[in-house]
Amino acid sequence: MANITKKVSWSSRADESGAAGEGTPLLNGSEQPRHSRQPSEGGSLCQIGRLSTVDLEEEITSDEESQRGRPKEIPHNEKLLSLKYESLDYDNIENQLFLEEERKMSYMGFRCLEISRWVVCGLIGFLTGLIACFIDIVVEQLAGIKYQVVKENIEKFTEVGGLSISLLLWAVLNSAIVMLGAIIVAFFEPIAAGSGIPQIKCYLNGIKIPRVVRLKTLVVKVGGVICSVVGGLAVGKEGPMIHSGAVVAAGVSQGRSTSLKRDFKIFEYFRRDTEKRDFVSAGAAAGVSAAFGAPVGGVLFSLEEGASFWNQMLTWRIFFASMISTFTLNFFLSIYHNKPGELSNPGLINFGRFQGDSVAYNLYEIPLFIAMGAIGGLLGALFNVLNYWLTIFRIRYVHRPCLQVMEAMLVAAVTATVSFTMIYFSNDCQPLGPEHTEEYPLQLFCADGEYNSMATAFFNTPERSVRSLFHNQPGTYNPLTLGLFTLTYFFLACWTYGLAVSAGVFIPSLLIGAAWGRLCGIMLATITPDGSIWADPGKYALIGAAAQLGGIVRMTLSLTVIMVEATGNVTYGLPIMLVLMTAKIVGDYFVEGLYDIHIKLQSVPFLHWEAPATSHWLTAREVMSSPVTCLNRIEKVGTIVDTLSNTSTNHNGFPVVVKVSGSDEPPKLCGLILRSQLIVLLKHKVFSIHVSQDERECMMDLTEFMNATPYTVPQETSLPRVFKLFRALGLRHLVVVDDENRVVGLVTRKDLARYHLGKHGLEELQLAQT
Amino acid sequence: MANITKKVSWSSRADESGAAGEGTPLLNGSEQPRHSRQPSEGGSLCQIGRLSTVDLEEEITSDEESQRGRPKEIPHNEKLLSLKYESLDYDNIENQLFLEEERKMSYMGFRCLEISRWVVCGLIGFLTGLIACFIDIVVEQLAGIKYQVVKENIEKFTEVGGLSISLLLWAVLNSAIVMLGAIIVAFFEPIAAGSGIPQIKCYLNGIKIPRVVRLKTLVVKVGGVICSVVGGLAVGKEGPMIHSGAVVAAGVSQGRSTSLKRDFKIFEYFRRDTEKRDFVSAGAAAGVSAAFGAPVGGVLFSLEEGASFWNQMLTWRIFFASMISTFTLNFFLSIYHNKPGELSNPGLINFGRFQGDSVAYNLYEIPLFIAMGAIGGLLGALFNVLNYWLTIFRIRYVHRPCLQVMEAMLVAAVTATVSFTMIYFSNDCQPLGPEHTEEYPLQLFCADGEYNSMATAFFNTPERSVRSLFHNQPGTYNPLTLGLFTLTYFFLACWTYGLAVSAGVFIPSLLIGAAWGRLCGIMLATITPDGSIWADPGKYALIGAAAQLGGIVRMTLSLTVIMVEATGNVTYGLPIMLVLMTAKIVGDYFVEGLYDIHIKLQSVPFLHWEAPATSHWLTAREVMSSPVTCLNRIEKVGTIVDTLSNTSTNHNGFPVVVKVSGSDEPPKLCGLILRSQLIVLLKHKVFSIHVSQDERECMMDLTEFMNATPYTVPQETSLPRVFKLFRALGLRHLVVVDDENRVVGLVTRKDLARYHLGKHGLEELQLAQT
Repeated sequence: MANITKKVSWSSRADESGAAGEGTPLLNGSEQPRHSRQPSEGGSLCQIGRLSTVDLEEEITSDEESQRGRPKEIPHNEKLLSLKYESLDYDNIENQLFLEEERKMSYMGFRCLEISRWVVCGLIGFLTGLIACFIDIVVEQLAGIKYQVVKENIEKFTEVGGLSISLLLWAVLNSAIVMLGAIIVAFFEPIAAGSGIPQIKCYLNGIKIPRVVRLKTLVVKVGGVICSVVGGLAVGKEGPMIHSGAVVAAGVSQGRSTSLKRDFKIFEYFRRDTEKRDFVSAGAAAGVSAAFGAPVGGVLFSLEEGASFWNQMLTWRIFFASMISTFTLNFFLSIYHNKPGELSNPGLINFGRFQGDSVAYNLYEIPLFIAMGAIGGLLGALFNVLNYWLTIFRIRYVHRPCLQVMEAMLVAAVTATVSFTMIYFSNDCQPLGPEHTEEYPLQLFCADGEYNSMATAFFNTPERSVRSLFHNQPGTYNPLTLGLFTLTYFFLACWTYGLAVSAGVFIPSLLIGAAWGRLCGIMLATITPDGSIWADPGKYALIGAAAQLGGIVRMTLSLTVIMVEATGNVTYGLPIMLVLMTAKIVGDYFVEGLYDIHIKLQSVPFLHWEAPATSHWLTAREVMSSPVTCLNRIEKVGTIVDTLSNTSTNHNGFPVVVKVSGSDEPPKLCGLILRSQLIVLLKHKVFSIHVSQDERECMMDLTEFMNATPYTVPQETSLPRVFKLFRALGLRHLVVVDDENRVVGLVTRKDLARYHLGKHGLEELQLAQT
Repeated sequence: MANITKKVSWSSRADESGAAGEGTPLLNGSEQPRHSRQPSEGGSLCQIGRLSTVDLEEEITSDEESQRGRPKEIPHNEKLLSLKYESLDYDNIENQLFLEEERKMSYMGFRCLEISRWVVCGLIGFLTGLIACFIDIVVEQLAGIKYQVVKENIEKFTEVGGLSISLLLWAVLNSAIVMLGAIIVAFFEPIAAGSGIPQIKCYLNGIKIPRVVRLKTLVVKVGGVICSVVGGLAVGKEGPMIHSGAVVAAGVSQGRSTSLKRDFKIFEYFRRDTEKRDFVSAGAAAGVSAAFGAPVGGVLFSLEEGASFWNQMLTWRIFFASMISTFTLNFFLSIYHNKPGELSNPGLINFGRFQGDSVAYNLYEIPLFIAMGAIGGLLGALFNVLNYWLTIFRIRYVHRPCLQVMEAMLVAAVTATVSFTMIYFSNDCQPLGPEHTEEYPLQLFCADGEYNSMATAFFNTPERSVRSLFHNQPGTYNPLTLGLFTLTYFFLACWTYGLAVSAGVFIPSLLIGAAWGRLCGIMLATITPDGSIWADPGKYALIGAAAQLGGIVRMTLSLTVIMVEATGNVTYGLPIMLVLMTAKIVGDYFVEGLYDIHIKLQSVPFLHWEAPATSHWLTAREVMSSPVTCLNRIEKVGTIVDTLSNTSTNHNGFPVVVKVSGSDEPPKLCGLILRSQLIVLLKHKVFSIHVSQDERECMMDLTEFMNATPYTVPQETSLPRVFKLFRALGLRHLVVVDDENRVVGLVTRKDLARYHLGKHGLEELQLAQT
């Protein structure tokens, strides 16, 4: 069985029900069978004996499935390309039913659809903003309680001695909270682990990652991220917002939920891959927008990751969703902060305003910025390599949920211990000014009226720490504090990313970068005579943060805009761009970006923007899968059932051919039909009884259901040309024909994804069933 | 003759040499003929008797051509679709020669190409920045001299009486300067008229507008824009920067200039439509970036107007060009302003910083903003309708260059007179503060220490006026001044756009909007009790400016980002977005955007993003051109010459078919060859002598030169599907075949562009030769 051979390893767990119920088999828009086509009599006689072996996707519920077949160990190799992932079909299946539906629709109908799209995007933005708001408030409240308890405890024991009890309290508190987060992730929805950005990237690229846009995933994600941030891990709550937005978008736009097993019977027109993808883009953008207060950055993120075909109206709708999302977040946060109606607040992370003359930059600082970009690229590459090894280790040895939970708890305890130790041994006391911005100033061993500076970095949510590093007065941190903090936080963050908790890597990266960036700024101010004038440490903290983040994630355009929007100052656009470019160039020399590493480790058939440069000597003939299982236009049910049940083929699309009657010429291509469509046809028995009573001899006419005009290419077409067609149109199957229009092969995503440029020219990945 | 029938009406002038020398016939990259294919003996015997009638494009120089055949009157109708425009081919012509070249290239070769692309983009940015800098400095100097002369004259005559002499001086000065600008545009390069944005939009959409990216166009454009701004017209210098950037990009990337008749033999690989388009996108972005100090806005502009297929690397290069452009401009302007190295200056137009609490906005202001957006939409629609009528009038009656020059001079004189009158009759005197920002304060009839407030709006370059409206203290303008100014400037700007001068509509739009926006702000402050606190008039001026500009040009995403970057404050992102959306929705209800109106009036086959919504009932069979002239793979030279010379067909691409020898089956499609390729083949006599001495009987083998794998669609394909394929891949010809792979038709741009959604559903435009 094709389906049985599929194992999902993204979440180290077998699950194949992926898009169950999300497919839109017969025509793109709706799943209702065409009852008029059902045989009016004798239908019940026509039982398909062997149909049960076809294992209809829709009949497996995810919960049954997720309990069985957990593999002991999954072989992982980035030179493999997994065959288990299905592809999304961004090309409408234009069969007769579809065209009839579309033609029936009036101009007004299309106008209404367009308005619905706007409404849905508005809803997506609103809900995403609400979720961001919820996460923000809950994290702030819970973290506040936690830090208050620990602070009081520390203050108590600072005087009487026995601070190890405080340490224990802190570590246990953290571990307990993180345990909760890890349990729901590891046991209930492993796909909710991490930031979710690699998964959304894959989804937007056109790969069906099972259960990635489910309601259950969202709930676990939100709960998980609250636990990880409150649990004091070196994580941020921003990355998961992107995933959350995407889930919201998928849920709202489809008008049904697989997790709730509810179908609200609305927006049925949008139940096709192409519409859903567009909405998920909008959701991801809304997520970015809510997380960073960066609506334009959100749009660019979605486009950078997802769009293959830029469409003005779509972009505008995405923008609308982003806008509403930021607006909603601002509005509700302004009420929460008792300043209702003041909408100038940015997103979840607020870098604060960079204003005034001290933050202007000069020409001679540009080389410094570029050098910092290079450092960021180097440190980012180091981070990624370490995390790559760690991930390999985790895939091999830490794939059982209870182990995963234990690892998460260990990390939480270690984080608390390290933080405590750093604070304990730090003697960087700073005076507590009248307008100090510290939320939980720890006096510890400092004199009265002073606070421990190391604690502002460690004893705080990471967002606040970033803001302190950007905006605290020069002299707030001494260089040793910053150096030690960078070093420890770097390794903590690296260890943390990839744990079975919902958490993002944006904020830890920014924090590491801000710390060493501020260090650079302080050092510059020290070594130059009039340094204090131009070397504002906050400015260098910002540049360092950009460099470090760029070095780790390697985003460019969208990240620049996100940073600019989050700082609220376009003046820094140019240096941030330069820094990000440098970081990317330097980092790419060593290793890929963090998200790409994780995508590659999953052996996902990810399509890049263009075919490898040196692939012109390959033609469709060489890359295509062949021979192809073709179906006749009027086909025996038995043959169809056999084809679908055949374990050796894993095809999801079948070319339909027609033979000229009375001629001995080979059959010609006349259409394309999907596995999912055939299964629905079989389920609804859309065939008439013919010749014999044996149902396997029934004939089925596929004419009405097949896509009569599939895209084709001649077999001499070069790979770049095939790639361009496939990528630009978001195809799933591309039929290769000879000059007589006979089917000679089929090109699918994996055929294109397996060629890539390695160090030694064009390399080919192996295909693997796992 | 196909070529002779073409008449250019964009610039009201016949010119067909369009892309002469820019075509890349044999393989995309280079024009060298394959000498190895030339017959080694007897070649000279084979003269093509009638070849001269083919009228090879390359042999007509633009100067000869531009002097003849000026039509008396050109019929214009936006329901027509002109057949005279050729399409760009963004699909590489993958013939054998091309593939051999590509296959010969090593991985290092591709790396070098990639680096060259970056270098070219850097150069584009640098040169565009320099041009912007040049324009800025020259305009500032010349305008300074002009206003100084006029000011001194006015001051002189204010005391002794006889201000009509001052008026005369002002009007004559303006007219003379504008005359110069109009003469170079009208007589030397009519395509340089206007902002150039519609032309660049068309180019990026895939339409070959003759001479739009020539060096001569650039020189005239730069000279023209300096004259129009210095001449005091209601124009801006920002729009033309976009065109200038595009010309720079085309010139630099192609390594040759048709105007100079020089070929620098560099970047020959980039001499193909697809590479050139990418660079022109980068140039346009660099232009926006230099004009508004908005690198991200520039990228978005290029993508909004040009990109059909979003490519991450391309986007990043475009971003690089934009960045370098802003940087160059900033750097040189900082030197010019004696603050070398201070790079925080934005672009040509600088809205100044919006900072402080007074400019924060509140929830209850959002409805006000939206209302202002609606006003902007209404006023924009009015502007567009008036300008549409005016343009129709101009096309009918003012198409002779000398008339055009006279009209421009008239407008200049009227502008000066109106300005003078307004200033003269205004009695809005304001005290001249110690830190006044007025460059040329006119005292006129005001008391000593005061200046005439109306003069700050009229007696100034428009950029300065915008900035004053945004940032001057509340109370600087009285409402009557603003109202009168709005009214007069609205009509002046409307009259000015479309004159035969190089000029942009961005700044006049902003200025009109800023004036009535500030008026709104003042009125709000008056009618509310504590109004002075929240109704900062500068804020409302900004919102008004956005609304008016949005109402006129109807750009959305890119314009939002441009405005945000130009104000240097992301806080305004949300209100600006809302305002632009409202303005677009309201404006679209009445009439299209200004650029689209002008594009439509040229009957350009402009492809929108998607096929009209209700076009599913149309199939390729209905939209295609048929019958198609096909060539055999081995074809008689005589037939080819006849085909090319046939005046009744205007095809630029011919399907190549092959007949199975010995069978009576109809021929099958085997490739596609372009007219331009055939012409080069004929010029270089790439055929062998065969059978008879009569050269018309020579046979030519097209196998090596034709694109062997053209994209095809079956004739049942629905229009939206054809459209999507055509648009996403930037095709020029799409062959329609039957199920036996026989050619039944050809779909080109005009076949798709002629369907559009009107008020009463799907409408079809008529095709016209003019």
